[in-house]
Amino acid sequence: MEAYLTLVATDSYAAGALILSNQLRDLGSTKEIVCLVTPNISSHIQDLLSKICTVIQVDSIRSKDFDNLQLLGRPELDITFTKIQLWRLTQYKKIVYLDADTFPLKNIDELFDRPSFSAAPDAGWPDCFNSGVFVTEPSETAFNELLALSSEQGSFDGGDQGLLNSYFSSWSTSPSQRLPFTFNTTPTSQYGYAPAHNQFGHNISIIHFIGQNKPWKYQRFSDGKVLPLGSAWEGLRNMVQEW
Amino acid sequence: MEAYLTLVATDSYAAGALILSNQLRDLGSTKEIVCLVTPNISSHIQDLLSKICTVIQVDSIRSKDFDNLQLLGRPELDITFTKIQLWRLTQYKKIVYLDADTFPLKNIDELFDRPSFSAAPDAGWPDCFNSGVFVTEPSETAFNELLALSSEQGSFDGGDQGLLNSYFSSWSTSPSQRLPFTFNTTPTSQYGYAPAHNQFGHNISIIHFIGQNKPWKYQRFSDGKVLPLGSAWEGLRNMVQEW
Ligand SMILES: O=c1ccn([C@@H]2O[C@H](COP(=O)(O)OP(=O)(O)O)[C@@H](O)[C@H]2O)c(=O)[nH]1
Ligand SMILES: O=c1ccn([C@@H]2O[C@H](COP(=O)(O)OP(=O)(O)O)[C@@H](O)[C@H]2O)c(=O)[nH]1
Ligand SMILES: [Mn+2]
Ligand SMILES: [Mn+2]
Repeated sequence: MEAYLTLVATDSYAAGALILSNQLRDLGSTKEIVCLVTPNISSHIQDLLSKICTVIQVDSIRSKDFDNLQLLGRPELDITFTKIQLWRLTQYKKIVYLDADTFPLKNIDELFDRPSFSAAPDAGWPDCFNSGVFVTEPSETAFNELLALSSEQGSFDGGDQGLLNSYFSSWSTSPSQRLPFTFNTTPTSQYGYAPAHNQFGHNISIIHFIGQNKPWKYQRFSDGKVLPLGSAWEGLRNMVQEW
Repeated sequence: MEAYLTLVATDSYAAGALILSNQLRDLGSTKEIVCLVTPNISSHIQDLLSKICTVIQVDSIRSKDFDNLQLLGRPELDITFTKIQLWRLTQYKKIVYLDADTFPLKNIDELFDRPSFSAAPDAGWPDCFNSGVFVTEPSETAFNELLALSSEQGSFDGGDQGLLNSYFSSWSTSPSQRLPFTFNTTPTSQYGYAPAHNQFGHNISIIHFIGQNKPWKYQRFSDGKVLPLGSAWEGLRNMVQEW
């Protein structure tokens, strides 16, 4: 069995998971959609989620690496270690993981044809992958190894991305595991190379709103128009508008 | 014959070319170093350059695509089309091109063993390459095709990088042409993924100071210490300090 999977570890990200799940359906996917939730998620939100996806409860796992999270400027990402529990879901043969702050623009079912493990480059350091979108196969062994790695070495960025890059370290030299950047386009990274967005933007399959300004944080006018947040580029505002 | 090649199209970049050439020698390379200069470069600066490298005069070629350059925020990059004249230098079999704002930290002669055309991903859109560092073989045909492309289609970013990415468009799907990001690490791109710089920084072979804040623009105290410019990350200041 195959499934899309996302994660809601704090109530505020539920908006993302709901929009994401709806969008997958709107784009015509009939795959199962799974949402991992932690015990702190309010029951009202779990009810909402369960209308559109399979809700699976997991424990919170936190990184304790505050130094690296501070370097990243994102203390709240300690909770992203929770993500590794998806490798325990061996009832699914293949999983396409999507962060709750991702938003597909096209049907992406073709991702299930990609080998495990596949991911797209991270714009900050393109020899690492970004861990907001990936294709993988659950395996209890992988879960145990990830858990061991996290307690022995921790994560070089304090979040799941550093941990996963250390574990799947063959990614950078293995071309078949590399997804095009259009499957994890991060318009919020500040050196955005705007001309490339113009040139290749029509190819974008998944937008990923990395960083602090999540689309659900923007204020909207009564006609639905988004109020710009920060000094962001106009193209980004259009993408948030679409969300 | 093989050569490193850089470009000085305005006097202000000469500091970069001089430091770069000296650094290549300090790191033990005995390869020829060539600097392309345009007619506007003052004779005093040409004299200085010719003490350390082979100076070759070329015409200025300018892009007229001000819309895309504005999108990039870099109107001055119209002159980077001048770069394509390196493909005319068929007296060299293989060239390692380095922007004047690059700074090697290790001997990089191994780049001459890479296939033509090789380049590293651009941090803004990692399915494009950054055109500040590349390995190529001069060819009159390539030059003529680049010239034709530039007048027929222009460049999607208004500078050489857009043009070269359109011409060498197989790069993104051809793993053997991909240089590690450590051969063109761009610490000035603002989403810098600082933890990755900490983790992999010791592997960096070439720093590339992309953007407006070139290392020669920083003020320095009398003891040589650099005065921070803009809101840049501390790791960047250390790299400018090293320049
Ligand atoms: O407070 C949090 C932080 C993270 N997440 C989950 O972990 C993912 C990764 O965090 P985030 O997307 O904020 O990281 P970024 O993509 O900005 O690096 C989110 O998309 C959510 O699925 C969450 O539920 N609550
Ligand atoms: O006014 C200019 C602009 C560019 N260049 C040359 O063209 C290269 C590319 O420009 P730059 O490095 O400023 O572009 P960036 O790397 O910031 O995109 C420079 O390194 C120089 O070799 C130059 O000589 N004078
Ligand atoms: Mn995310
Ligand atoms: Mn440059």
